[in-house]
Amino acid sequence: MSRLFCLPSLILALLLLVPSANARQAEPESEQTDISDQISELRASAELLIEAAMADSAAWDRLAYLTDTFGPRFSGSKNLELAIDWILEEMVHDGLQNVRGEPVKVPHWVRGEETLVLLEPHERRLEILGLGGSVGTGPGGVTGEVLVVNSFDDLASRGDEAKGKVVLWNVPFTSYGATVTYRSNGAVRAAEAGAIASLVRSVGPYSMYTPHTGNSRYDESVPKIPHAAVTVEDAMMMQRMQDRGHTIRVRLEMQDYWLPDADSHNVVGELVGSEYPEEIIVMGGHIDSWDVGTGAMDDAGGCVVAWEALRLMKELGLQPKRTIRVVMWTNEENGLRGGNAYRDAHIDEVDNHILAMESDAGVFKPVGFGFTGSDAAFDIITQIGTLLDGVGSGKMTRGGGGADIGPIMQEGVPGMGLNVEGERYFWYHHTNADYVDKLDPDHVARAVATMAVMAFSVADMDQRLPR
Amino acid sequence: MSRLFCLPSLILALLLLVPSANARQAEPESEQTDISDQISELRASAELLIEAAMADSAAWDRLAYLTDTFGPRFSGSKNLELAIDWILEEMVHDGLQNVRGEPVKVPHWVRGEETLVLLEPHERRLEILGLGGSVGTGPGGVTGEVLVVNSFDDLASRGDEAKGKVVLWNVPFTSYGATVTYRSNGAVRAAEAGAIASLVRSVGPYSMYTPHTGNSRYDESVPKIPHAAVTVEDAMMMQRMQDRGHTIRVRLEMQDYWLPDADSHNVVGELVGSEYPEEIIVMGGHIDSWDVGTGAMDDAGGCVVAWEALRLMKELGLQPKRTIRVVMWTNEENGLRGGNAYRDAHIDEVDNHILAMESDAGVFKPVGFGFTGSDAAFDIITQIGTLLDGVGSGKMTRGGGGADIGPIMQEGVPGMGLNVEGERYFWYHHTNADYVDKLDPDHVARAVATMAVMAFSVADMDQRLPR
Repeated sequence: MSRLFCLPSLILALLLLVPSANARQAEPESEQTDISDQISELRASAELLIEAAMADSAAWDRLAYLTDTFGPRFSGSKNLELAIDWILEEMVHDGLQNVRGEPVKVPHWVRGEETLVLLEPHERRLEILGLGGSVGTGPGGVTGEVLVVNSFDDLASRGDEAKGKVVLWNVPFTSYGATVTYRSNGAVRAAEAGAIASLVRSVGPYSMYTPHTGNSRYDESVPKIPHAAVTVEDAMMMQRMQDRGHTIRVRLEMQDYWLPDADSHNVVGELVGSEYPEEIIVMGGHIDSWDVGTGAMDDAGGCVVAWEALRLMKELGLQPKRTIRVVMWTNEENGLRGGNAYRDAHIDEVDNHILAMESDAGVFKPVGFGFTGSDAAFDIITQIGTLLDGVGSGKMTRGGGGADIGPIMQEGVPGMGLNVEGERYFWYHHTNADYVDKLDPDHVARAVATMAVMAFSVADMDQRLPR
Repeated sequence: MSRLFCLPSLILALLLLVPSANARQAEPESEQTDISDQISELRASAELLIEAAMADSAAWDRLAYLTDTFGPRFSGSKNLELAIDWILEEMVHDGLQNVRGEPVKVPHWVRGEETLVLLEPHERRLEILGLGGSVGTGPGGVTGEVLVVNSFDDLASRGDEAKGKVVLWNVPFTSYGATVTYRSNGAVRAAEAGAIASLVRSVGPYSMYTPHTGNSRYDESVPKIPHAAVTVEDAMMMQRMQDRGHTIRVRLEMQDYWLPDADSHNVVGELVGSEYPEEIIVMGGHIDSWDVGTGAMDDAGGCVVAWEALRLMKELGLQPKRTIRVVMWTNEENGLRGGNAYRDAHIDEVDNHILAMESDAGVFKPVGFGFTGSDAAFDIITQIGTLLDGVGSGKMTRGGGGADIGPIMQEGVPGMGLNVEGERYFWYHHTNADYVDKLDPDHVARAVATMAVMAFSVADMDQRLPR
């Protein structure tokens, strides 16, 4: 773990503020000058926050503690609520204000035993992960021939070939957007063609026999058929078998089921602003995860970096002019109920939400933020970004946000998402491999620094960030 | 897939043989000159073999067919014998001679259902793979506290702490040799310390929640306790839990068991030599695999490249002076019965085994051979290596062989192993991820060329390779 800033350099940075203040007096007044001065004034706090964030591996350690101790945090699970209870206690110990869990009813789908047995051309159990919300197969499962297709058009062109068969969507990963549609819509489209079950090639660019779960949908007008992800290896294998003219037969058994909606909570903790306490910068990630791995990357990391950013402000005695609120939304993965509930519960103060920030792309090495808002606001956050050049995360780009802040962004709140060097994000996304060891303590510390500097700067400016 | 040689270059190479033959007449006789002339004469055959091997993806296709159609080929399994039967039929179709299965009795261990449930600090099923030969736990499994240790010395230093516990050997991968000892000997050493079960961190440098199986041993003087591999992720997680002072409790259930020895076969096919048919160059790999993945890398690839090398000689009408024998040994993984049975069955002709060649490091991009034999022989094979410079696989190094040819090497047969760029070999080794998609058709073709040129050249020299 490298350290970007040491104590002598911090003192130096503080001393450098004096000429900067002098410069402000000498320069003629203009809008541009006003913003530069703000940035100069914020530099001292920024340096303090960066120094503190990079001083140790506290954030990674907290992330490891959370994910190791409570495990995956699927909506409706005991693990999720135990994790939330622990975080609320810790936030109080940290000295955060208005710490609370805001109630949210969440969907409660339960993964039962899931097995896929290849029967022909050879017999072997293959690994799968049922897709979120899938119906079960009933006892004994469903047995049938596999039809491998490569696109919706491919299936459409095959007439009634899929009737009574198990459709396998074998679509190689290009981008998430281009391939996830087969996971989301595969069951409906296969059922429309008369299939008895739907399998999808896992949505990821690299596999070590690693199935990826994720959400999927049904259409009430079409029979609900079981829907599961196979590994990239098995999808490619079944493609080759079909290309050779071999018959592929499988038995799929899934004991997945639904329970009534469960009680969960959005986790909230604040530092109340000194001058405009009613104006809010909200930042966070989602505390729920899929029920595989430990959801360290997706998205305990996003929660912890926002939380640690706020804890460091408190510890350093940095009270911003506006309120900074950390929210760990619940049920992003299979319902987005947390983000919607937050909007509903806070609709009266949504106009006073100055900025919403989310980290949900994995806390790999941060590079900056993607921002959605006005040109005037983008100009300001771009200048704030210069405070992060030492961390390597000062690059502001147009467009960005996050699933959980989407509902309040729809109400007009400017939003931004943390951008990272996430080349391996989709290697681990929604898999059993999503463990804290995939994240580097140095990167996590940089992400804390990045979230902290941006949130504090926007919260502490003289003027509101314009809409 | 790149093509190293095209037809015009082949014709050119053939024409170039004329001046070479002239040169032999003009030069004074010496040992060195004699060898150079041999090499020059062999160049035409080498170029033909290389051209043919690199012309298409036939070898990769055959490897894919074998591994997809028959799946993993564990000793005692139906899959293994079906795969062997198919290969024997195909060898006959290929026109190979003396095609036969030589009977071998092999151990028959069966993997039953295997589950490891973490009970504390949170409850979740963790992935494991029982290690070859492990006893089962009996119904209900064994439940206990986990003690994480980092070496044999570490365990020894802990007095009776392991008594009644599940020992986890958390030893990070450095080299296979340094870490596999915990997989091989962990159950014995843990049982000696009074443990009720033994878990080992999977032996591999990189994990996407990928357990690695492999062989292990018991000592008759120590109680036999269940022994399984956990993923790297879970080993690291349990280490962190222990370091925090958390109690770790697990329930391990394994329904593994033994059956009586089963019937298997070493697969043999030949091209009989034209001048010294009784002198044998033997080459191959092992046809059995672990019962996970499809054993494409370990070691169907090694079998197929030797087989394809011989098929190409037959197809090209290249009959060497000595006999080249392809052998696909059975039961390398959990017994080495095939290699031992081959030695026993062929003990009378072992003195006429000129060279034994094995490919069992994965058919990644080949770089050359590691050779065990006399200096005089090494000098010759080094010069043969120059015929492979165009393939990039002409580097001969000292030391090398293979598990299956080990028994005849013990009897004095010079041996060599194919060396490859195998950086990811231990990512997939003994895991469910060992599928043909991990191998590149171009690399497999180069391996065929490499095996073919070396085997043919040694078989076709005027003189025997000296011992």
